[in-house]
Amino acid sequence: MRILILGAAGMIGAKLARKLITEGQLSDRAITALDLVDVQAPEISSTALPCQCRAVDVTQDGTLEELIAERPDVIFHLAAMVSAGAERDFEGGYRVNVDASRALFEAIRKAHMTDGYRPRVVFASSIAVYGAPLPDPIEDNHIRTPQTSYGTQKAIVELLLDDYTRRGFFDGIGLRLPTIVIRPGQPNAAASGFFSGILREPLAGLPSRLPVARDVTHWLASPRAAVRFLMHAAALDGAAVGHHRSLTMPGLCTTVAGQIEALERAAGPDAVALISDEPNTEIAAMIAAWPRSFSPDRALALGFEAEGSVDALISVYLEDDGPAKDAD
Amino acid sequence: MRILILGAAGMIGAKLARKLITEGQLSDRAITALDLVDVQAPEISSTALPCQCRAVDVTQDGTLEELIAERPDVIFHLAAMVSAGAERDFEGGYRVNVDASRALFEAIRKAHMTDGYRPRVVFASSIAVYGAPLPDPIEDNHIRTPQTSYGTQKAIVELLLDDYTRRGFFDGIGLRLPTIVIRPGQPNAAASGFFSGILREPLAGLPSRLPVARDVTHWLASPRAAVRFLMHAAALDGAAVGHHRSLTMPGLCTTVAGQIEALERAAGPDAVALISDEPNTEIAAMIAAWPRSFSPDRALALGFEAEGSVDALISVYLEDDGPAKDAD
Repeated sequence: MRILILGAAGMIGAKLARKLITEGQLSDRAITALDLVDVQAPEISSTALPCQCRAVDVTQDGTLEELIAERPDVIFHLAAMVSAGAERDFEGGYRVNVDASRALFEAIRKAHMTDGYRPRVVFASSIAVYGAPLPDPIEDNHIRTPQTSYGTQKAIVELLLDDYTRRGFFDGIGLRLPTIVIRPGQPNAAASGFFSGILREPLAGLPSRLPVARDVTHWLASPRAAVRFLMHAAALDGAAVGHHRSLTMPGLCTTVAGQIEALERAAGPDAVALISDEPNTEIAAMIAAWPRSFSPDRALALGFEAEGSVDALISVYLEDDGPAKDAD
Repeated sequence: MRILILGAAGMIGAKLARKLITEGQLSDRAITALDLVDVQAPEISSTALPCQCRAVDVTQDGTLEELIAERPDVIFHLAAMVSAGAERDFEGGYRVNVDASRALFEAIRKAHMTDGYRPRVVFASSIAVYGAPLPDPIEDNHIRTPQTSYGTQKAIVELLLDDYTRRGFFDGIGLRLPTIVIRPGQPNAAASGFFSGILREPLAGLPSRLPVARDVTHWLASPRAAVRFLMHAAALDGAAVGHHRSLTMPGLCTTVAGQIEALERAAGPDAVALISDEPNTEIAAMIAAWPRSFSPDRALALGFEAEGSVDALISVYLEDDGPAKDAD
């Protein structure tokens, strides 16, 4: 099977690509080719299977048709402008997060009209489709009233995913990923970046700023879990998902204080002392409108699984990405 | 104040225009100009106030910028491809119902960026944003999972309406109109057309086809109520609406059998005998995925009011549009 990853230079996309290369197969079918695409060419190679890395601007006309011409069996659509970026750049956010997604869906539809092509499309949505006032926990059938442009854009693509799937143009599944913790490497522009930073930086002996109050509660999963979610979605029986194609992924509900306690268990009080409270009203306001916890019953019934503790999130980070590896 | 109606040649748009001309004011402000726009020029004139009727294809680049250049204080956005049409013509439905709406919102945003322009936008949404499985009644915070392309398109514009309003580009309010009964004149392409037809045709002594079972339940309001909803929305305090800008309008929950009983009360058994049951599986399937009844608490609290009986719907039709008037 041929697999296309849009957004393969991103943290999750690159981890997914490497995992697919390692496994060599997806749902018992051998992977014959891997197309890795991002606005900057991903730097991933494999001796085991044909792996093309390409720099592609998905907002440019015609680029998606070229990618779809290869008729990938599975498309992971992870390309996005992140939350704070889409909030700052209104036009850019809609262009990347809505228009490019629709251009992808249209390219697939036109291929479908030509020869019946009907790939599995796995779309990375977000819990930012939910906005206040929110119950706690949030049930699977709760209304999507996002309070950021990013969340609006993700909710729009979820609606398109349902309609294109209903029409039979492709077989789409959307995953509302929890906030991913611990993200390796440098902070990105996401408003939620500090949820990783307050663990990652102290684990490396570096200072970290906390822009929100310590009683802020959030919904987390590891990068490893996110990759597992995406691969599980790619292999899922579409008929079992039903009409509403987007699923809230399981995660771990914890407070910032709970994260810091786990940090202390893993790295001691000196690590905790590296965190400084530096309230940022803009970030705090965005986070306040975000969800805290979910009852992801549909996803659990379909076999998706996440970590159960912040200690596990820290262990996954230390095993997969931790400071020792960064120093390589 | 200057008012723009997009879709002013449609049934509701024309009734709204005539009502505005009759009243001469909206929320205590005198109407100084009325721009009436549709794909075919509306045929409405007034001696009392300046009234421009224009044929405009809102899917053409630049047309909406021209209309917004006049800086209307209130914009009624009623232009749409109807449900069955959008289901048959996938590309056309998205072009008219999504792209033209977004082009309108973008034209307003650009004007806002230029001079702070910030009009009230009243958008005609639809109860088709809801799809099965549905509770009965449907609460205001129920998830929107439409099962038609039309409903998907309306739900997407509702999301855009919230985001553009949150950003301060305009002050939008969306109204999920019930199925409008009794529509005067000829049947249109809407799958819901028969809800009017089974009353309208027999009231004029004409035969009518019923494509669904008589126990089908639906949510109805008169054209007069729809016009009242739109005018009430135009005059509403935006702050009272909150972040989620679309409101399910109140209506009347009735079965097809209940409609037929009211027809018998109004026009006797001979009228009822003109209805023939001719099941249409395509229409029945669409209707089956539509909502039956609502608890429109937000709209009721904001002062929106609908009729309480099918008898009232028939009376409104006979007063405003009935067979006697058609014969003029």
